[in-house]
Order: sequence, then structure tokens, then C-alpha cells
Amino acid sequence: MDIQKILEEIQSEVQPLLAQGRVARYIPELAAVPADKFGMALRTVDGATFTVGAARERFSIQSISKIFTLTMAMQLAGDDLWQRVGREPSGNPFNSLVQLEYENGKPRNPFINAGALVVTDVILSHLDDATQTVRDIVRALCGKDDIDFDLSVAASEQETGHRNKAMAHFLKSFGNLDNAPERVLDAYFHHCSLAMSCLELCEAILFLAHNGVAPVSGDLVMTTNQVKYVNSLLLTCGTYDAVGDFAYRVGLPGKSGVGGGIAAIMPGHFSVCAWSPGLDTSGNSLAGTKALELLTTKTGISVF
Amino acid sequence: MDIQKILEEIQSEVQPLLAQGRVARYIPELAAVPADKFGMALRTVDGATFTVGAARERFSIQSISKIFTLTMAMQLAGDDLWQRVGREPSGNPFNSLVQLEYENGKPRNPFINAGALVVTDVILSHLDDATQTVRDIVRALCGKDDIDFDLSVAASEQETGHRNKAMAHFLKSFGNLDNAPERVLDAYFHHCSLAMSCLELCEAILFLAHNGVAPVSGDLVMTTNQVKYVNSLLLTCGTYDAVGDFAYRVGLPGKSGVGGGIAAIMPGHFSVCAWSPGLDTSGNSLAGTKALELLTTKTGISVF
Amino acid sequence: MDIQKILEEIQSEVQPLLAQGRVARYIPELAAVPADKFGMALRTVDGATFTVGAARERFSIQSISKIFTLTMAMQLAGDDLWQRVGREPSGNPFNSLVQLEYENGKPRNPFINAGALVVTDVILSHLDDATQTVRDIVRALCGKDDIDFDLSVAASEQETGHRNKAMAHFLKSFGNLDNAPERVLDAYFHHCSLAMSCLELCEAILFLAHNGVAPVSGDLVMTTNQVKYVNSLLLTCGTYDAVGDFAYRVGLPGKSGVGGGIAAIMPGHFSVCAWSPGLDTSGNSLAGTKALELLTTKTGISVF
Amino acid sequence: MDIQKILEEIQSEVQPLLAQGRVARYIPELAAVPADKFGMALRTVDGATFTVGAARERFSIQSISKIFTLTMAMQLAGDDLWQRVGREPSGNPFNSLVQLEYENGKPRNPFINAGALVVTDVILSHLDDATQTVRDIVRALCGKDDIDFDLSVAASEQETGHRNKAMAHFLKSFGNLDNAPERVLDAYFHHCSLAMSCLELCEAILFLAHNGVAPVSGDLVMTTNQVKYVNSLLLTCGTYDAVGDFAYRVGLPGKSGVGGGIAAIMPGHFSVCAWSPGLDTSGNSLAGTKALELLTTKTGISVF
Repeated sequence: MDIQKILEEIQSEVQPLLAQGRVARYIPELAAVPADKFGMALRTVDGATFTVGAARERFSIQSISKIFTLTMAMQLAGDDLWQRVGREPSGNPFNSLVQLEYENGKPRNPFINAGALVVTDVILSHLDDATQTVRDIVRALCGKDDIDFDLSVAASEQETGHRNKAMAHFLKSFGNLDNAPERVLDAYFHHCSLAMSCLELCEAILFLAHNGVAPVSGDLVMTTNQVKYVNSLLLTCGTYDAVGDFAYRVGLPGKSGVGGGIAAIMPGHFSVCAWSPGLDTSGNSLAGTKALELLTTKTGISVF
Repeated sequence: MDIQKILEEIQSEVQPLLAQGRVARYIPELAAVPADKFGMALRTVDGATFTVGAARERFSIQSISKIFTLTMAMQLAGDDLWQRVGREPSGNPFNSLVQLEYENGKPRNPFINAGALVVTDVILSHLDDATQTVRDIVRALCGKDDIDFDLSVAASEQETGHRNKAMAHFLKSFGNLDNAPERVLDAYFHHCSLAMSCLELCEAILFLAHNGVAPVSGDLVMTTNQVKYVNSLLLTCGTYDAVGDFAYRVGLPGKSGVGGGIAAIMPGHFSVCAWSPGLDTSGNSLAGTKALELLTTKTGISVF
Repeated sequence: MDIQKILEEIQSEVQPLLAQGRVARYIPELAAVPADKFGMALRTVDGATFTVGAARERFSIQSISKIFTLTMAMQLAGDDLWQRVGREPSGNPFNSLVQLEYENGKPRNPFINAGALVVTDVILSHLDDATQTVRDIVRALCGKDDIDFDLSVAASEQETGHRNKAMAHFLKSFGNLDNAPERVLDAYFHHCSLAMSCLELCEAILFLAHNGVAPVSGDLVMTTNQVKYVNSLLLTCGTYDAVGDFAYRVGLPGKSGVGGGIAAIMPGHFSVCAWSPGLDTSGNSLAGTKALELLTTKTGISVF
Repeated sequence: MDIQKILEEIQSEVQPLLAQGRVARYIPELAAVPADKFGMALRTVDGATFTVGAARERFSIQSISKIFTLTMAMQLAGDDLWQRVGREPSGNPFNSLVQLEYENGKPRNPFINAGALVVTDVILSHLDDATQTVRDIVRALCGKDDIDFDLSVAASEQETGHRNKAMAHFLKSFGNLDNAPERVLDAYFHHCSLAMSCLELCEAILFLAHNGVAPVSGDLVMTTNQVKYVNSLLLTCGTYDAVGDFAYRVGLPGKSGVGGGIAAIMPGHFSVCAWSPGLDTSGNSLAGTKALELLTTKTGISVF
């Protein structure tokens, strides 16, 4: 199969969609990214790499960072983590407080914002410098020392993130944050502000397609069972309120961010990342989702 | 890999769980089934069959019938079906009316009861004798002419199914049933009362592991794309409010019923069905879920 | 104070509003009533009567009948009634199923539809011919032997009342109906179809302004304490989701119906009823509410 | 009627209840108040005063302060206030975020915490020193210069009030706070910490029984219409999720606080305040509610 050719076909086919998505506007840094950007990278477990478009241009990974914080929290807290956060799809918009109230402050899963705040709190309780460590782990996973936070993005999130602040105080009121809400929020906003390229994201999550072994370092990031767990969580909870639609159309475990990135895994085979800043009404990249759908349709490869 | 030996290990390992589940008690026919029953069957796409325990004993398939009615509705209505029923996990107990109210009578997916009522309504609008036809299709799929409804089960459901009746009238109030609620309910209760064995269920759903081709007849039941769709819906919506837990532990698309059956698919490889009447708190078979978890753990085969 | 003159002023001032309300359209019988009808009657505890407009024309009293069924259920079941229905405002649209689900099938109060279905069920459990008896009691209260159900209205409600049917089956699923849902619904639809005039309604509810003594018969309908209870329920729960607005603007305990009638009580002083078929967005008569607001403003008499 | 004798009877009759309520424990200052305290004061519009028990002992008025902040906001913003806060009962526990989410950040009424935060924000936007001014107005209303905040109470609320903080940030996320959440919360916590006695509260709210005229100063605090509005809001929204129960049993507009105070009004006649720190499950003073119920039962005077 000529993967490079397929990626080029995809790049050409998604062009008309670039104008149709809506770039996130709630902070100036995201609003300023041109809507017509598109990049895509695919990395196989045997080391082959394919790219098209702006695959090497860094963007704000936003919620894709939840993969890395969940990975860390699973390493640090083991199964105790699941006392504090669930593993079920939320069936509600990604920032809903309703469910949290009816379920006494236990977020449904680690990929909704409330769940990621609890995950961040768990990391903070284990590590002195949690923020730095998350960045260092991401650097190690893809072997790039210059990956870093975008501090102006983090500052803007801090300024406008009233709903995340409400959520953190709400979790605290249920006793499901050990650290001060302000400290948890600060770490969370930093993680979301990481700037990475499609290619770097493919590298960083390739261990999820590779039985838990990081390709760069050869290190065992997590056990085969843990990999299965993370992938199942991604498939059932990774794309906001469009989980079913994404599974239906793309058929791969994946995680999206409002920066327009989507990173996905074909277990045993490859990792893939598409980026385009224009979002659909669910908050997922419009052209990015289409690109991944075209990939699984053209290759006939998906988990289903 | 010695599948037969693995199934025998599983049968032995789940014995202690048989006493722990809770048999459904809302109708006498289900309540009367002994809690210590266990059966399991696996059928590969190349025709090999493996069974242990009561794999040939028929039980009430209940919600597993939703696979067959969805299959029929997709054949009859095509993509129009998705105007009337969604494809997203519900994130709520399987019989909740709340979500239906907030989403104006469009059920979240075809595997919650509300969604299955709409699916049944769609079939009724296309076929004169919908109930009979569903039975005939199931018979054809597994090549068994004596598969039939358990009319006393259907009658008991009719007597006690106040919540399903509430749901049907509620759907009607939103204009999302074309036929009379009473007629839709009658067909729905019949479908749920189908009695089949693990082995027959494996046969009947094998097309979902086989690019849509039924193994018995060689007929194309649905296209490869449609198979991908059904499997993704099963994985994200097939096991009530334990979808995440099931994906996490088992890692296969599957559908459970309160009769204690669970049918699952490993695309490209096999179909599998486990049956044990004792249920966990989510309404899924306790030993059945464990049996499937052991299968994917011991074989190392799952979609993730 | 010249009450007659005040009513005439009100009649003149509400004329421009008659065109603005929206006549209920869900059944043909209600849809056919001309929007420009307006009538108003006031009856004091010492026997004086004042009327303007169509005060003697009968209309479908609809939910105003809930006053009479509550009165009967309080007589028949005493305080046991409150085991099955609450006394708190619902804070939700009048036909919401959400609250019922979160509160395990106990309706918030007797004036929302779910609560009135439970109240009707209580009456049915005590009386052989509940429907007839309700009519007879209303006849006795206002001394008019020809007050009756509008059977074509009842039949239309039966045909289109899918949401009420959903509610009845839902209540049954929680075990909060003793009788068959179909029987409860039939009685309920009959009660709602009673046809009465403003003047007749004033007569029928005057006991609520008169320490529980019916003016026509001199009978004690309920105790002083029970009167206080019914009036407090009317004030806090009697006007759908506009309870606060009605208390704020009118300041009297009252009950509205989708037929356009509103009946209210000034304890110790008078009963009053306004009728105009055009409804506001909350389902209360637009001109009727304004008429009552003008009455309490012009007279300076309200409970506050 | 011998009011003094009635109050003494009440004092004696509520003694057995003092042990049964549960003193608020979320901050040390409230937890330290002895559960057996009881005081009651009644002040008529013609200047007569009656007291029993600890009627002159100051306690933390908590949510009763919402009467004073609403009064100020109505003076400052007029009808514009109702663009930002509703006038309907909430039908949910007093600190629920659910309704706020479904109604886009507009609190149901000014007496739930969310509504009081918006009311406080309105005052802050009009006045340089809002906190001081609220205190000064309360001082003026009852002619006592030494009424003041309890700063240790305010500090404790600040420390533990995670749910109120969540609410403030949530309101901000909907754009329904003009000022910084931290500033609004600080003012709000101060207002709640006011320490006053039953007698002082009777004095301070007597204008609501007196057509808006403050008895001490003779000043017009609000118009007759505004008085009617505030009283109707108190009756339909003043006692958390027990509004119906309070109207049913007491039958007076009133406002309770978790410090154990309840202040109520009989329009045209008197104001009354009962205090006892033990709360019922709705957060209202157990003995205080009973005392007011006994008052309206023994005197036969209520709005109904």
C-alpha cells in the first residue's frame, strides 16, 4: 500500500473543507492561526514515516495533552486513579457540570475537562514539579528537547477559563481535589499550552500502537494491558460529544484538541496525526476528522 | 493457539462467579432460569467452532435482538435512519427519559431502549409483517428453522413494561414514532423474546466479523462500511451504562441482554457469545463479561 | 370601592392584548375558540357578584379542574396523600419527566400533570365512579345541574395526549399508580374537559375564600387549615412555570388552564375568574393574567 | 389577642425540638453556637413589640441578608435587575448548578446563592464601597450603629466556600458577572456574616409590612408595588427547597438562613423573627419554622 500517495490524495480532497471550519476564538493566540493550515503525519511501528502539508509546524495541542497526563497518572497512582475518575463516556458536552453534580464530583472519564483536572491533581500530589515533568516526559517520548509550553497561551487560558475554574472549585467542594484549585488550574493550563507538530505527536504516542514501548528510547512506558486500557478510553471518550460519530466514521482510538489537532492510533500498526484549525460544532477539527476518515476508508484499516 | 483449551480454562475460572450475579426478576420466565448456567461458543470466519458448557441451550436473547433490528433498519432505510436516532453513547442508565427530553425525542443511539423502539418503528413502516420478518432473517442467518419467539416472555414484558410504554408514548409525543405506540411495543417485545443458544448467536452475527457476508448463506448482509458502522456502535453503545468498562476490560464490540447473554465480534477473526443468567449492577452478565475478558487477555486478541 | 367599574376598566384595558395571545392548538375543540373572547367574574364572600364580558359563557376549564380533584383527594385520603405527591414548586415546564425520574416517581406537587394523575389515581381507589363524582361535586358547589364534560374534548385529549400517557406509564413503572394507567388517564381527560363559565368557577371555588364553607349549600367542604394548605399550594404551584411571575404581578393564589381560564382567591374576601383563550409562552391566559394583575393593582388588595 | 402570651406558649412548645435540629457545621463559628438557643420577636406596624427568649442575642443572619441586598439592587437598578436574575422558584437544592447550566447562567431568583451573587455584582457596579453601604443601610433600618460583620465568619466562608466560588466563576463564564468573581465573593461573604438579633431583624424588615416605609426613619425604602414584589418573591423562593412546605405550614413570606434565623412578614400587620440554630434537612431552622407555624395557627393570621 502506498501510504504517501494516500496522504497526498487526502490532502487534496480536504482542501474545500479548510474554509468551512470555525477556528477557536476564545483566546487571541488560537484565533490568530490561519484557517487554511493543514498537515498530517503517520508513523508505523517499524519506523516508517509519512507526512504531507504542515506536518512539521507546531500548534497548540490543547486537550491532546490529556493523553500524556493520563499516562503519567496511571504510572504514579495505578488503579487507585479509578477511585477518583470514571471510565465511561459522558454523553454530554465536554464542559458540563450537570453530570458532576449528579455523580457527586466524580468525573465520568479522564478526557473531559473535569476528569483531566482530577488527573492533574493526582500528578501534583506525587511530584514536586509536575508541570516541568509532564513537559520532560513529552520531550523524552519524541526525542525533542525544545518542545515547550506557550506561556502566552497558558496566560490567556488563565484569564478566560472561568468554566474550568468553576469546575475546579466544584471538584474541591466534593473533596475530589487534594491540592488548591488555583494550583491545579495553573498546571492544567500549562499542559494544554504545549506546542507540538503532527510529526512530534505521532512520535510521542507511538507507544500506544507498540505494546507500550516508546520507539525513540526503547523504554517501556506502560504495560500491554495499560495500553489496551488507554486505547479503549480514547475510543469511547476521546472526542468530546462526538465519540460515536468519530468511531463510526474513523474507527480508531483518538484524541482531539481545540487547537485543531487530532492524534489517533491503529494498535499494532501506526500512529497518525492530522491538524487543521477549523473546528466542527463538536469542537473537533473539521478537515482533520475528514482526513482520518479518508485514511481508514482508503486503506481499509481500522479497529472494526 | 488452542482455543478449545482456552475456553475450558475460562469455564473453570468463572465457576465462582456464577453464584454472585443477580438473575433478572422482573418477569417470571427470566427469574426461573437457574443462576449457575454457563455456556460459551466461538466461531471463526474460516468455519471453526468451539464450545463449552451450555453453549447449545437456548435462552432469552433480549436486547441482543437490537443487533438484528438495527441491521434490518439499515437495509430498509439507509442513512435516513440517522435522522431519527443518534450514534452517540448515552452516558446514562439505559432506560433514562431525561436525555430524550433534553434532546427533543431523538434517542442517543439504536441500542438504548428508546432507540430500539424508533428502529422498530422504522421497520414497521417498511414491512407488512415486521415481527415475522425479523424472526425469518435470524433463522436464515444461522440456518435454523425452529428459532422462535417465546410468547410467554413477550406477554410478560407486555404486562410489566411500563417504562418502555412510557418511552413509546413519549417518543410519539415528539413525533418520532410513525406507528401507534401499542403496535411498536408489541413488535419490540416480540423481538426481545427470541430464544437462541450461544452457538446460534455466534452464527447469526458472524457476518459482522466477515465483511458483511453471512457464512451460512454466503449472502451479503451489509457492506463493509456498514459493518464498520455497526461494530463501532456496538463498541461505544452496546453494553448499557458500562460501555467504557466493557471496552476497557474486554476490548471487543459487543451487545448484552438481561437474559444473561453477551455476543461480541473480533472483526476479521471471529464471533463469540457467552451466557450466564446472573447480572452485575449494570445489567450485563457477570460471568459472561468475565469470560470475554479472560478470552481477550489469554489470547492477546482485542481491537486495541 | 366600585368593583363593577373597576372590572369595566379592566375589560377595556385588556382589549389590545386579545390579539396577542396564542390559542392552544393541540386539539381542534380548543383551536376553534375565537381568540377575542374575554370574560371576568368576581364573587365576594358576602354574596355580591360582579361580571363583565363573556362571564357566563362556558369554556374548557382544563387544569383548573385540578383544584376540584385535589379537594376530593384531600377529603378521601387525608394526609396520606402527601406520601405520594409533594408540595413543592417544580421549577420546570409543567409536563417535564426529568424531575419525576430524579425523584423516583413522586411528582413535585398536585398541580403539575404528573401530580394530578396521582391525585386522580387516589380518587379512583376510593370511589367506584370517580369521574361521575367529580362532576357531581362541581355541580353541587355551584348549584348548577347541567355542568358536564365535553366528551369531544375528552376524546381529542385521549387521541393526542401522548405525553400524559407517557407520564402515566412512567408513574406506574415507579409503582406510584394503583390503577391501570389507561383508567387513570380516562378519568383525568374527563375532568379536564369540564365546561364551565367564569361565574360558575367563582361560585365553585368560593369556599377557598370562605374558611372552607361552600356558599351555595352552606356545607363545610374542608377545614380552615386545609383551605390554607390549598391556597398556599395554588400560590406556589398553580400557574405552571410562571408561578413566581404570577405571584409577583397578581399576588393571589390561582390556577390556570390551557382553555384560557384563570381562577383565583383572595382569602376572606372574594374569588375571581378571568377567561381569554389566547395564551402566553408559559401557557397562561395572556389577557386573563393581565386582568387579574390590574384588579389587584387597582384595588390595592392582594395577599402581599 | 394576647400576642405576648402566644409567644410564651410557643416558646414552651418548641423546647422539645431544640435538641432535634442539626447545627450547621461547615465553619467553626456556626458549629460553636449552642443548639438549645431560642428567641423570637414580633413587631407590629403600629409600634408594639413582643419578645421571648434570646430575642436580643445576635446571631449570624447568613442568607437573610439577601433581603437587604435585593432591596438595594432594586433601588439601584430598577427593572433592569430582572434581565439578569429570574423570579421563579428553583425547584432544586439551593446551591444547584444544574439549572444555571440549562438556563444559560441566569439564576432562577435572587434568593438562591447564584442569584444573590448576581445581585451583589449589580450593587458592586453601582457603588464604590458596596460592602460598607449594605451594612450602613441595615444600621439605618433598625437604628443601631453597632451592627457589624463578623469578620471571622466571613473569613471562614471564604476558606470553605468552594461551591459558591464554583458558582461565581460559572456565572462569569456566562457573562453574568460584571466584576471579578473574587470581588463579588468577598462582598457576598461579608453580607452573610452580618450579626443581628431577632428584634433587630424585625425592625429592619418592618418596611415590608408597612407599604415600604421604614418605621425608625420614616423613610420610604421602596414603593408599595416593590413591597408586593419582594413579599411574593419571599413566599415563592425564600426558604430553599422547602418553599412549598413553608407556605403550607406557615403561610407568610419569609427568609431563612443557615445561622438558624427566619424572618417573616404579615403584610399590613407585623414582622416576626424566630431563631434557633438547629436546622432541618432543608437547611431551615427546625424550631424556628415550628414557632412561626404555631404563630399563624394560634392567631389564625396568615396570608391565606
